[in-house]
Amino acid sequence: MTAMKAALIQQSFTANVRENMARSAKRVEEAAKNGAKLIVLSELHNSLYFCQSENPAFFELAETIPGKSTEYFGAIAKRLGVVLVLSLFEKRAKGLYHNTAVAIDFDGNVAGKYRKMHIPDDPSFYEKFYFAPGDLGFKPIETGVGRLGVLVCWDQWFPEAARLMALSNADILIYPTAIGWNAEDSDDEKLRQLDAWRIIQRSHAAANALPTIAANRVGYEKGQNGEGDGIDFWGASFICGAQGEFLAKADQNETILYADLDFHRTETVRRIWPFLRDRRADCYADITKRFIE
Amino acid sequence: MTAMKAALIQQSFTANVRENMARSAKRVEEAAKNGAKLIVLSELHNSLYFCQSENPAFFELAETIPGKSTEYFGAIAKRLGVVLVLSLFEKRAKGLYHNTAVAIDFDGNVAGKYRKMHIPDDPSFYEKFYFAPGDLGFKPIETGVGRLGVLVCWDQWFPEAARLMALSNADILIYPTAIGWNAEDSDDEKLRQLDAWRIIQRSHAAANALPTIAANRVGYEKGQNGEGDGIDFWGASFICGAQGEFLAKADQNETILYADLDFHRTETVRRIWPFLRDRRADCYADITKRFIE
Repeated sequence: MTAMKAALIQQSFTANVRENMARSAKRVEEAAKNGAKLIVLSELHNSLYFCQSENPAFFELAETIPGKSTEYFGAIAKRLGVVLVLSLFEKRAKGLYHNTAVAIDFDGNVAGKYRKMHIPDDPSFYEKFYFAPGDLGFKPIETGVGRLGVLVCWDQWFPEAARLMALSNADILIYPTAIGWNAEDSDDEKLRQLDAWRIIQRSHAAANALPTIAANRVGYEKGQNGEGDGIDFWGASFICGAQGEFLAKADQNETILYADLDFHRTETVRRIWPFLRDRRADCYADITKRFIE
Repeated sequence: MTAMKAALIQQSFTANVRENMARSAKRVEEAAKNGAKLIVLSELHNSLYFCQSENPAFFELAETIPGKSTEYFGAIAKRLGVVLVLSLFEKRAKGLYHNTAVAIDFDGNVAGKYRKMHIPDDPSFYEKFYFAPGDLGFKPIETGVGRLGVLVCWDQWFPEAARLMALSNADILIYPTAIGWNAEDSDDEKLRQLDAWRIIQRSHAAANALPTIAANRVGYEKGQNGEGDGIDFWGASFICGAQGEFLAKADQNETILYADLDFHRTETVRRIWPFLRDRRADCYADITKRFIE
Protein backbone atom coordinates (compact mmCIF):
# COMPACT_ATOMS: atom_id res chain seq x y z
CA MET A 1 0.00 0.00 0.00
CA THR A 2 1.49 3.38 -0.94
CA ALA A 3 -1.27 5.82 0.01
CA MET A 4 -3.93 5.68 2.68
CA LYS A 5 -5.83 7.71 5.21
CA ALA A 6 -4.33 7.68 8.70
CA ALA A 7 -5.99 8.86 11.89
CA LEU A 8 -4.96 9.52 15.46
CA ILE A 9 -7.25 9.73 18.44
CA GLN A 10 -6.53 12.45 20.97
CA GLN A 11 -8.57 11.83 24.08
CA SER A 12 -8.72 12.16 27.85
CA PHE A 13 -9.09 9.31 30.30
CA THR A 14 -10.60 8.39 33.66
CA ALA A 15 -9.79 5.82 36.34
CA ASN A 16 -12.36 3.47 34.78
CA VAL A 17 -10.44 1.16 32.43
CA ARG A 18 -13.51 -0.47 30.86
CA GLU A 19 -14.97 2.96 30.14
CA ASN A 20 -11.68 4.16 28.59
CA MET A 21 -11.56 1.12 26.35
CA ALA A 22 -15.18 1.60 25.28
CA ARG A 23 -14.64 5.29 24.51
CA SER A 24 -11.49 4.53 22.50
CA ALA A 25 -13.38 1.80 20.62
CA LYS A 26 -16.13 4.25 19.72
CA ARG A 27 -13.61 6.70 18.26
CA VAL A 28 -11.81 3.95 16.39
CA GLU A 29 -15.17 3.08 14.86
CA GLU A 30 -15.74 6.71 13.87
CA ALA A 31 -12.26 7.01 12.34
CA ALA A 32 -12.76 3.79 10.37
CA LYS A 33 -16.16 5.01 9.14
CA ASN A 34 -14.37 8.14 7.87
CA GLY A 35 -11.99 5.99 5.84
CA ALA A 36 -8.94 5.68 8.09
CA LYS A 37 -6.94 2.50 7.50
CA LEU A 38 -4.32 3.19 10.17
CA ILE A 39 -5.51 4.42 13.57
CA VAL A 40 -3.19 5.43 16.41
CA LEU A 41 -4.14 5.79 20.08
CA SER A 42 -2.18 7.79 22.64
CA GLU A 43 0.16 6.37 25.29
CA LEU A 44 -1.22 4.03 27.97
CA HIS A 45 -4.75 4.74 26.78
CA ASN A 46 -6.47 2.22 29.02
CA SER A 47 -5.90 4.16 32.23
CA LEU A 48 -5.00 7.42 33.86
CA TYR A 49 -1.29 8.23 33.63
CA PHE A 50 -0.46 6.29 36.80
CA CYS A 51 3.28 7.14 36.66
CA GLN A 52 2.62 10.36 38.58
CA SER A 53 3.01 8.14 41.67
CA GLU A 54 5.36 5.30 42.57
CA ASN A 55 2.69 2.94 43.86
CA PRO A 56 3.14 -0.84 43.72
CA ALA A 57 -0.65 -1.28 43.54
CA PHE A 58 -0.68 0.21 40.04
CA PHE A 59 1.13 -2.83 38.65
CA GLU A 60 -2.37 -4.40 38.79
CA LEU A 61 -3.16 -2.32 35.68
CA ALA A 62 -0.68 -4.35 33.63
CA GLU A 63 -1.68 -7.12 31.26
CA THR A 64 -0.10 -9.75 29.08
CA ILE A 65 0.42 -9.34 25.33
CA PRO A 66 -1.52 -10.96 23.79
CA GLY A 67 -4.17 -10.44 26.44
CA LYS A 68 -7.40 -8.68 27.17
CA SER A 69 -6.65 -5.48 25.22
CA THR A 70 -5.26 -7.17 22.14
CA GLU A 71 -8.35 -9.42 22.10
CA TYR A 72 -10.75 -6.54 22.60
CA PHE A 73 -9.17 -4.20 20.06
CA GLY A 74 -8.18 -7.09 17.80
CA ALA A 75 -11.83 -7.98 17.30
CA ILE A 76 -12.60 -4.34 16.49
CA ALA A 77 -9.71 -4.04 14.01
CA LYS A 78 -10.83 -7.20 12.25
CA ARG A 79 -14.45 -6.12 12.06
CA LEU A 80 -13.56 -2.65 10.74
CA GLY A 81 -10.66 -3.75 8.53
CA VAL A 82 -8.13 -1.33 10.02
CA VAL A 83 -4.63 -1.42 11.46
CA LEU A 84 -4.54 -0.22 15.07
CA VAL A 85 -1.59 1.01 17.13
CA LEU A 86 -2.18 0.43 20.83
CA SER A 87 -0.07 1.47 23.82
CA LEU A 88 -0.23 -0.95 26.74
CA PHE A 89 1.23 -1.59 30.19
CA GLU A 90 2.76 -4.99 29.53
CA LYS A 91 3.21 -7.67 32.19
CA ARG A 92 5.96 -9.85 30.75
CA ALA A 93 6.75 -12.00 33.77
CA LYS A 94 6.43 -11.90 37.53
CA GLY A 95 7.71 -8.46 38.51
CA LEU A 96 8.82 -7.57 34.96
CA TYR A 97 6.91 -4.88 33.12
CA HIS A 98 7.27 -2.78 29.97
CA ASN A 99 5.67 0.21 28.32
CA THR A 100 4.74 -1.51 25.06
CA ALA A 101 3.14 -0.46 21.82
CA VAL A 102 1.31 -3.08 19.77
CA ALA A 103 0.27 -3.01 16.14
CA ILE A 104 -2.88 -4.97 15.32
CA ASP A 105 -3.22 -5.96 11.69
CA PHE A 106 -6.30 -6.03 9.44
CA ASP A 107 -6.95 -9.63 10.49
CA GLY A 108 -7.16 -8.68 14.16
CA ASN A 109 -3.92 -10.41 15.08
CA VAL A 110 -0.89 -8.87 16.75
CA ALA A 111 1.42 -7.85 13.90
CA GLY A 112 4.22 -6.99 16.30
CA LYS A 113 5.16 -5.01 19.34
CA TYR A 114 7.70 -2.41 20.40
CA ARG A 115 8.91 -2.03 23.97
CA LYS A 116 9.72 1.58 24.87
CA MET A 117 13.49 1.84 24.84
CA HIS A 118 14.03 5.23 26.51
CA ILE A 119 12.39 5.41 29.92
CA PRO A 120 11.95 8.85 31.52
CA ASP A 121 12.05 9.66 35.19
CA ASP A 122 11.42 13.18 36.36
CA PRO A 123 8.96 14.77 38.77
CA SER A 124 5.43 13.45 37.97
CA PHE A 125 6.79 11.05 35.31
CA TYR A 126 8.22 8.22 37.43
CA GLU A 127 8.38 5.67 34.65
CA LYS A 128 11.63 4.03 35.71
CA PHE A 129 9.74 2.60 38.69
CA TYR A 130 7.29 0.75 36.45
CA PHE A 131 8.96 -0.08 33.18
CA ALA A 132 12.08 -2.04 32.37
CA PRO A 133 13.81 -0.53 29.32
CA GLY A 134 12.81 -2.25 26.09
CA ASP A 135 14.94 -5.04 24.67
CA LEU A 136 13.43 -5.50 21.22
CA GLY A 137 15.48 -2.76 19.58
CA PHE A 138 14.23 -0.32 16.98
CA LYS A 139 12.45 -2.55 14.47
CA PRO A 140 9.51 -1.48 12.32
CA ILE A 141 6.40 -3.63 12.51
CA GLU A 142 5.23 -5.05 9.19
CA THR A 143 1.48 -4.54 8.70
CA GLY A 144 -1.04 -4.39 5.90
CA VAL A 145 -0.58 -0.61 5.62
CA GLY A 146 3.21 -0.63 5.67
CA ARG A 147 6.20 -0.90 7.97
CA LEU A 148 5.36 1.02 11.12
CA GLY A 149 8.23 2.67 12.97
CA VAL A 150 6.43 2.66 16.29
CA LEU A 151 8.20 4.44 19.14
CA VAL A 152 6.75 5.69 22.42
CA CYS A 153 6.75 9.18 23.97
CA TRP A 154 10.20 9.83 25.56
CA ASP A 155 11.76 8.03 22.55
CA GLN A 156 10.72 11.11 20.59
CA TRP A 157 13.62 13.12 22.03
CA PHE A 158 16.24 10.74 20.64
CA PRO A 159 17.12 11.18 16.95
CA GLU A 160 18.95 7.84 17.10
CA ALA A 161 15.66 5.97 17.54
CA ALA A 162 14.00 7.57 14.53
CA ARG A 163 17.11 7.09 12.43
CA LEU A 164 17.36 3.39 13.27
CA MET A 165 13.72 2.93 12.29
CA ALA A 166 14.41 4.67 8.97
CA LEU A 167 17.52 2.56 8.36
CA SER A 168 15.34 -0.52 8.94
CA ASN A 169 13.09 0.64 6.14
CA ALA A 170 10.18 2.07 8.12
CA ASP A 171 7.44 3.73 6.04
CA ILE A 172 6.27 5.99 8.86
CA LEU A 173 7.17 7.08 12.39
CA ILE A 174 4.51 6.80 15.10
CA TYR A 175 4.68 8.20 18.63
CA PRO A 176 1.91 7.39 21.13
CA THR A 177 2.57 10.00 23.81
CA ALA A 178 1.60 11.27 27.26
CA ILE A 179 3.24 14.63 27.79
CA GLY A 180 2.04 17.74 29.55
CA TRP A 181 2.85 20.67 31.74
CA ASN A 182 3.54 20.92 35.43
CA ALA A 183 1.66 23.82 37.02
CA GLU A 184 4.79 25.45 38.48
CA ASP A 185 6.29 26.23 35.07
CA SER A 186 5.93 29.74 33.67
CA ASP A 187 3.90 30.35 30.52
CA ASP A 188 7.13 31.02 28.64
CA GLU A 189 8.60 27.73 29.77
CA LYS A 190 5.40 25.89 28.83
CA LEU A 191 5.52 27.33 25.35
CA ARG A 192 9.19 26.40 24.95
CA GLN A 193 8.43 22.83 25.99
CA LEU A 194 5.48 22.45 23.64
CA ASP A 195 7.39 23.98 20.77
CA ALA A 196 10.44 21.81 21.39
CA TRP A 197 8.18 18.75 21.40
CA ARG A 198 6.77 19.70 18.01
CA ILE A 199 10.16 20.57 16.58
CA ILE A 200 11.92 17.39 17.64
CA GLN A 201 9.31 15.10 16.12
CA ARG A 202 8.93 17.12 12.93
CA SER A 203 12.73 17.00 12.67
CA HIS A 204 12.65 13.19 12.64
CA ALA A 205 10.26 13.39 9.72
CA ALA A 206 12.57 15.82 7.91
CA ALA A 207 15.82 14.00 8.74
CA ASN A 208 14.43 10.71 7.46
CA ALA A 209 11.84 11.84 4.90
CA LEU A 210 9.13 9.89 6.71
CA PRO A 211 5.59 10.96 7.58
CA THR A 212 5.14 11.10 11.34
CA ILE A 213 2.18 10.69 13.68
CA ALA A 214 2.34 12.05 17.24
CA ALA A 215 -0.74 11.09 19.30
CA ASN A 216 -0.78 12.77 22.71
CA ARG A 217 -3.33 12.46 25.49
CA VAL A 218 -5.15 15.58 26.60
CA GLY A 219 -6.72 16.95 29.77
CA TYR A 220 -5.71 17.57 33.36
CA GLU A 221 -4.97 14.58 35.60
CA LYS A 222 -4.13 15.00 39.26
CA GLY A 223 -1.74 12.61 41.00
CA GLN A 224 -3.75 9.60 42.13
CA ASN A 225 -2.03 9.57 45.52
CA GLY A 226 -2.57 13.31 45.95
CA GLU A 227 1.11 14.15 45.40
CA GLY A 228 2.36 16.86 43.03
CA ASP A 229 0.29 19.39 41.16
CA GLY A 230 -0.92 16.98 38.51
CA ILE A 231 -0.21 17.12 34.80
CA ASP A 232 -1.98 19.21 32.21
CA PHE A 233 -1.58 16.98 29.15
CA TRP A 234 -1.17 19.41 26.32
CA GLY A 235 -2.76 17.55 23.41
CA ALA A 236 -1.38 19.26 20.28
CA SER A 237 -1.19 15.91 18.49
CA PHE A 238 -0.23 16.15 14.84
CA ILE A 239 0.48 14.35 11.63
CA CYS A 240 3.26 15.69 9.43
CA GLY A 241 4.67 14.81 6.03
CA ALA A 242 8.09 13.75 4.83
CA GLN A 243 9.55 17.25 5.12
CA GLY A 244 8.10 17.79 8.59
CA GLU A 245 5.25 19.89 7.25
CA PHE A 246 2.01 19.79 9.23
CA LEU A 247 -0.77 17.82 7.55
CA ALA A 248 -3.12 17.99 10.55
CA LYS A 249 -2.80 19.36 14.06
CA ALA A 250 -4.90 19.45 17.18
CA ASP A 251 -5.38 21.96 19.95
CA GLN A 252 -6.17 21.05 23.57
CA ASN A 253 -9.54 19.39 22.92
CA GLU A 254 -10.48 15.78 22.33
CA THR A 255 -10.41 15.14 18.61
CA ILE A 256 -9.65 12.74 15.80
CA LEU A 257 -7.05 13.92 13.28
CA TYR A 258 -6.87 12.60 9.73
CA ALA A 259 -4.28 12.84 6.97
CA ASP A 260 -3.85 11.21 3.59
CA LEU A 261 -0.38 9.72 3.51
CA ASP A 262 1.48 8.90 0.33
CA PHE A 263 4.47 6.71 1.04
CA HIS A 264 5.87 7.48 -2.46
CA ARG A 265 6.62 10.95 -1.16
CA THR A 266 9.55 9.52 0.84
CA GLU A 267 11.23 8.37 -2.37
CA THR A 268 10.63 11.75 -4.04
CA VAL A 269 12.03 13.73 -1.12
CA ARG A 270 15.04 11.45 -0.68
CA ARG A 271 15.99 11.89 -4.36
CA ILE A 272 16.52 15.61 -3.91
CA TRP A 273 17.59 15.51 -0.23
CA PRO A 274 19.61 12.28 -0.24
CA PHE A 275 20.63 12.21 3.41
CA LEU A 276 20.85 8.42 3.39
CA ARG A 277 23.39 8.68 0.53
CA ASP A 278 25.56 11.21 2.36
CA ARG A 279 25.53 9.92 5.94
CA ARG A 280 29.09 9.50 7.24
CA ALA A 281 28.28 6.11 8.70
CA ASP A 282 32.03 5.44 8.79
CA CYS A 283 32.43 8.19 11.41
CA TYR A 284 29.50 7.68 13.78
CA ALA A 285 30.90 4.91 16.00
CA ASP A 286 31.16 7.16 19.05
CA ILE A 287 27.37 7.52 19.08
CA THR A 288 27.45 4.24 21.01
CA LYS A 289 29.25 5.93 23.90
CA ARG A 290 27.60 7.57 26.88
CA PHE A 291 30.02 10.49 26.54
CA ILE A 292 33.32 11.14 24.77
CA GLU A 293 36.07 12.10 27.19
CA MET B 1 33.11 32.02 30.09
CA THR B 2 29.47 31.12 30.76
CA ALA B 3 27.56 34.03 29.22
CA MET B 4 28.36 36.31 26.30
CA LYS B 5 26.92 38.11 23.35
CA ALA B 6 27.10 36.21 20.09
CA ALA B 7 26.51 37.59 16.60
CA LEU B 8 26.11 36.24 13.11
CA ILE B 9 26.55 38.14 9.90
CA GLN B 10 24.05 37.49 7.14
CA GLN B 11 25.30 39.02 3.94
CA SER B 12 25.41 38.74 0.15
CA PHE B 13 28.54 38.45 -1.95
CA THR B 14 30.01 39.39 -5.31
CA ALA B 15 32.71 37.92 -7.55
CA ASN B 16 35.21 40.34 -5.99
CA VAL B 17 36.96 38.43 -3.20
CA ARG B 18 38.81 41.43 -1.76
CA GLU B 19 35.60 43.40 -1.63
CA ASN B 20 33.78 40.52 0.09
CA MET B 21 36.51 40.28 2.70
CA ALA B 22 36.44 44.03 3.31
CA ARG B 23 32.65 44.09 3.67
CA SER B 24 32.73 41.13 6.08
CA ALA B 25 35.48 42.85 8.07
CA LYS B 26 33.36 46.00 8.36
CA ARG B 27 30.45 44.02 9.76
CA VAL B 28 32.68 42.12 12.16
CA GLU B 29 33.86 45.49 13.40
CA GLU B 30 30.26 46.65 13.86
CA ALA B 31 29.30 43.47 15.72
CA ALA B 32 32.32 43.78 18.00
CA LYS B 33 31.47 47.42 18.70
CA ASN B 34 28.04 46.24 19.75
CA GLY B 35 29.57 43.88 22.27
CA ALA B 36 29.68 40.56 20.44
CA LYS B 37 32.45 38.23 21.61
CA LEU B 38 31.67 35.42 19.17
CA ILE B 39 30.99 36.35 15.54
CA VAL B 40 29.98 33.84 12.87
CA LEU B 41 30.16 34.35 9.10
CA SER B 42 28.18 32.37 6.54
CA GLU B 43 29.52 29.56 4.36
CA LEU B 44 32.32 30.29 1.84
CA HIS B 45 31.99 34.01 2.55
CA ASN B 46 34.98 35.08 0.47
CA SER B 47 33.32 34.38 -2.87
CA LEU B 48 30.16 33.71 -4.78
CA TYR B 49 28.80 30.21 -4.27
CA PHE B 50 30.92 28.74 -7.06
CA CYS B 51 29.52 25.20 -6.63
CA GLN B 52 26.67 26.05 -9.00
CA SER B 53 29.13 25.00 -11.73
CA GLU B 54 31.67 22.20 -12.03
CA ASN B 55 34.52 24.34 -13.29
CA PRO B 56 38.17 23.41 -12.62
CA ALA B 57 39.12 27.11 -12.79
CA PHE B 58 37.29 27.76 -9.53
CA PHE B 59 39.87 25.75 -7.59
CA GLU B 60 41.93 28.95 -7.90
CA LEU B 61 39.67 30.38 -5.19
CA ALA B 62 41.07 27.93 -2.64
CA GLU B 63 43.69 28.87 -0.07
CA THR B 64 45.81 27.22 2.59
CA ILE B 65 44.95 27.23 6.28
CA PRO B 66 46.65 29.11 7.79
CA GLY B 67 46.80 31.46 4.84
CA LYS B 68 45.62 34.79 3.54
CA SER B 69 42.15 34.69 5.16
CA THR B 70 43.29 33.50 8.56
CA GLU B 71 45.94 36.22 8.54
CA TYR B 72 43.51 38.91 7.44
CA PHE B 73 40.71 37.98 9.81
CA GLY B 74 43.18 36.91 12.52
CA ALA B 75 44.53 40.44 12.72
CA ILE B 76 40.98 41.78 12.98
CA ALA B 77 39.98 39.28 15.69
CA LYS B 78 43.07 40.18 17.71
CA ARG B 79 42.51 43.91 17.37
CA LEU B 80 38.82 43.66 18.34
CA GLY B 81 39.24 40.93 20.96
CA VAL B 82 36.66 38.58 19.49
CA VAL B 83 36.39 34.96 18.44
CA LEU B 84 35.58 34.57 14.74
CA VAL B 85 34.16 31.59 12.88
CA LEU B 86 35.23 31.63 9.23
CA SER B 87 34.22 29.33 6.39
CA LEU B 88 36.93 28.80 3.78
CA PHE B 89 37.72 26.86 0.61
CA GLU B 90 40.77 24.98 1.86
CA LYS B 91 43.62 23.86 -0.40
CA ARG B 92 45.19 21.04 1.58
CA ALA B 93 47.54 19.62 -1.04
CA LYS B 94 47.90 19.49 -4.79
CA GLY B 95 44.42 18.57 -6.04
CA LEU B 96 43.01 18.01 -2.53
CA TYR B 97 40.45 20.49 -1.26
CA HIS B 98 37.99 20.80 1.62
CA ASN B 99 35.11 22.98 2.72
CA THR B 100 36.57 24.04 6.02
CA ALA B 101 35.44 26.16 8.94
CA VAL B 102 38.06 27.86 11.09
CA ALA B 103 37.74 29.35 14.55
CA ILE B 104 40.05 32.29 15.25
CA ASP B 105 40.68 32.95 18.93
CA PHE B 106 40.96 36.25 20.83
CA ASP B 107 44.71 36.27 20.16
CA GLY B 108 44.20 36.16 16.40
CA ASN B 109 45.51 32.61 16.06
CA VAL B 110 43.74 29.63 14.54
CA ALA B 111 42.08 27.85 17.47
CA GLY B 112 41.09 24.92 15.32
CA LYS B 113 39.33 23.88 12.16
CA TYR B 114 36.53 21.60 11.06
CA ARG B 115 36.36 20.01 7.62
CA LYS B 116 32.80 19.59 6.39
CA MET B 117 31.98 15.91 6.78
CA HIS B 118 28.76 15.62 4.77
CA ILE B 119 29.18 16.84 1.20
CA PRO B 120 26.03 17.54 -0.84
CA ASP B 121 25.61 17.11 -4.54
CA ASP B 122 22.38 18.03 -6.21
CA PRO B 123 21.43 20.38 -9.04
CA SER B 124 23.14 23.77 -8.45
CA PHE B 125 25.03 22.44 -5.42
CA TYR B 126 27.82 20.38 -7.00
CA GLU B 127 30.02 20.25 -3.93
CA LYS B 128 31.27 16.70 -4.42
CA PHE B 129 33.27 18.01 -7.38
CA TYR B 130 35.19 20.45 -5.22
CA PHE B 131 35.43 19.10 -1.69
CA ALA B 132 36.82 15.87 -0.31
CA PRO B 133 34.74 14.74 2.68
CA GLY B 134 36.22 15.89 5.99
CA ASP B 135 38.52 13.60 7.95
CA LEU B 136 38.82 15.46 11.25
CA GLY B 137 35.66 14.00 12.77
CA PHE B 138 33.16 15.87 14.89
CA LYS B 139 35.35 17.63 17.45
CA PRO B 140 34.50 20.93 19.13
CA ILE B 141 37.07 23.69 18.86
CA GLU B 142 38.30 25.06 22.19
CA THR B 143 38.27 28.88 22.21
CA GLY B 144 38.17 31.73 24.68
CA VAL B 145 34.38 31.81 24.54
CA GLY B 146 33.85 28.07 24.91
CA ARG B 147 33.93 24.80 23.00
CA LEU B 148 32.50 25.51 19.56
CA GLY B 149 30.66 22.66 17.84
CA VAL B 150 31.28 24.03 14.36
CA LEU B 151 29.58 22.16 11.52
CA VAL B 152 28.90 23.36 7.98
CA CYS B 153 25.65 23.62 6.02
CA TRP B 154 24.69 20.14 4.74
CA ASP B 155 25.88 18.72 8.09
CA GLN B 156 22.81 20.41 9.54
CA TRP B 157 20.56 17.63 8.19
CA PHE B 158 22.39 14.91 10.13
CA PRO B 159 21.43 14.56 13.80
CA GLU B 160 24.45 12.31 14.27
CA ALA B 161 26.81 15.24 13.72
CA ALA B 162 25.16 17.46 16.31
CA ARG B 163 24.96 14.57 18.78
CA LEU B 164 28.65 13.75 18.43
CA MET B 165 29.53 17.39 19.06
CA ALA B 166 27.36 17.34 22.19
CA LEU B 167 28.92 14.09 23.40
CA SER B 168 32.32 15.75 22.96
CA ASN B 169 31.21 18.47 25.34
CA ALA B 170 30.44 21.27 22.90
CA ASP B 171 28.98 24.44 24.45
CA ILE B 172 27.24 25.54 21.27
CA LEU B 173 26.42 24.37 17.75
CA ILE B 174 27.37 26.61 14.82
CA TYR B 175 26.33 26.19 11.17
CA PRO B 176 27.80 28.51 8.51
CA THR B 177 25.43 27.88 5.62
CA ALA B 178 24.70 28.57 1.96
CA ILE B 179 21.21 27.33 1.20
CA GLY B 180 18.52 28.69 -1.05
CA TRP B 181 15.77 28.02 -3.50
CA ASN B 182 15.81 26.92 -7.10
CA ALA B 183 13.40 28.96 -9.20
CA GLU B 184 11.50 25.93 -10.51
CA ASP B 185 10.14 24.96 -7.09
CA SER B 186 6.60 25.96 -6.18
CA ASP B 187 5.96 28.42 -3.37
CA ASP B 188 4.63 25.57 -1.23
CA GLU B 189 7.78 23.55 -1.80
CA LYS B 190 9.95 26.56 -0.99
CA LEU B 191 8.13 27.08 2.28
CA ARG B 192 8.47 23.39 3.19
CA GLN B 193 12.20 23.54 2.52
CA LEU B 194 12.75 26.69 4.56
CA ASP B 195 10.65 25.37 7.41
CA ALA B 196 12.41 21.99 7.40
CA TRP B 197 15.75 23.81 7.53
CA ARG B 198 14.66 25.76 10.59
CA ILE B 199 13.15 22.70 12.27
CA ILE B 200 16.13 20.41 11.81
CA GLN B 201 18.61 22.86 13.31
CA ARG B 202 16.34 23.89 16.15
CA SER B 203 15.87 20.19 16.84
CA HIS B 204 19.63 19.76 17.33
CA ALA B 205 19.46 22.51 19.94
CA ALA B 206 16.54 20.77 21.67
CA ALA B 207 17.95 17.23 21.44
CA ASN B 208 21.24 18.32 22.94
CA ALA B 209 20.24 21.33 25.05
CA LEU B 210 22.74 23.52 23.22
CA PRO B 211 22.32 27.04 21.84
CA THR B 212 22.64 27.03 18.07
CA ILE B 213 23.73 29.60 15.49
CA ALA B 214 22.75 29.17 11.83
CA ALA B 215 24.35 31.82 9.58
CA ASN B 216 23.10 31.67 6.01
CA ARG B 217 24.06 33.78 3.03
CA VAL B 218 21.37 35.86 1.35
CA GLY B 219 20.61 37.19 -2.11
CA TYR B 220 20.23 35.82 -5.63
CA GLU B 221 23.30 34.43 -7.40
CA LYS B 222 23.17 33.20 -10.96
CA GLY B 223 25.36 30.33 -12.11
CA GLN B 224 28.73 31.77 -13.09
CA ASN B 225 28.89 29.67 -16.24
CA GLY B 226 25.33 30.63 -17.18
CA GLU B 227 23.90 27.20 -16.36
CA GLY B 228 20.82 26.59 -14.22
CA ASP B 229 18.41 29.20 -12.91
CA GLY B 230 20.67 30.39 -10.13
CA ILE B 231 20.03 30.18 -6.41
CA ASP B 232 17.95 32.51 -4.31
CA PHE B 233 19.77 32.21 -0.96
CA TRP B 234 17.00 32.49 1.57
CA GLY B 235 18.76 34.15 4.51
CA ALA B 236 16.53 33.40 7.54
CA SER B 237 19.60 32.99 9.73
CA PHE B 238 18.82 32.55 13.40
CA ILE B 239 20.15 32.01 16.88
CA CYS B 240 18.19 29.72 19.19
CA GLY B 241 18.49 28.64 22.80
CA ALA B 242 18.91 25.28 24.49
CA GLN B 243 15.28 24.28 23.92
CA GLY B 244 15.34 25.33 20.27
CA GLU B 245 13.55 28.60 21.04
CA PHE B 246 14.32 31.52 18.75
CA LEU B 247 16.49 34.21 20.34
CA ALA B 248 16.98 36.16 17.11
CA LYS B 249 15.97 35.59 13.51
CA ALA B 250 16.51 37.29 10.19
CA ASP B 251 14.41 37.73 7.09
CA GLN B 252 15.83 37.95 3.56
CA ASN B 253 17.87 41.12 4.04
CA GLU B 254 21.50 41.64 4.96
CA THR B 255 21.72 41.94 8.72
CA ILE B 256 23.66 41.22 11.87
CA LEU B 257 21.86 39.15 14.49
CA TYR B 258 22.73 39.23 18.18
CA ALA B 259 21.83 37.08 21.16
CA ASP B 260 23.02 36.84 24.74
CA LEU B 261 23.96 33.24 25.36
CA ASP B 262 24.15 31.70 28.82
CA PHE B 263 25.95 28.37 28.70
CA HIS B 264 24.63 27.53 32.20
CA ARG B 265 21.24 27.08 30.58
CA THR B 266 22.42 23.77 29.10
CA GLU B 267 22.96 22.35 32.58
CA THR B 268 19.55 23.62 33.75
CA VAL B 269 17.71 22.14 30.78
CA ARG B 270 19.56 18.82 30.95
CA ARG B 271 18.60 18.39 34.63
CA ILE B 272 14.91 18.32 33.77
CA TRP B 273 15.24 16.80 30.28
CA PRO B 274 18.13 14.39 30.89
CA PHE B 275 18.43 12.92 27.41
CA LEU B 276 22.12 12.19 27.92
CA ARG B 277 21.20 10.09 30.96
CA ASP B 278 18.60 8.07 29.10
CA ARG B 279 20.25 7.50 25.72
CA ARG B 280 20.27 3.77 24.88
CA ALA B 281 23.89 3.95 23.78
CA ASP B 282 24.00 0.15 24.15
CA CYS B 283 21.53 -0.21 21.27
CA TYR B 284 22.71 2.33 18.69
CA ALA B 285 25.46 0.31 16.99
CA ASP B 286 23.54 -0.03 13.73
CA ILE B 287 23.75 3.74 13.24
CA THR B 288 27.16 2.99 11.76
CA LYS B 289 25.55 1.07 8.90
CA ARG B 290 24.49 2.55 5.58
CA PHE B 291 21.23 0.60 5.81
CA ILE B 292 19.92 -2.32 7.82
CA GLU B 293 18.84 -5.22 5.64
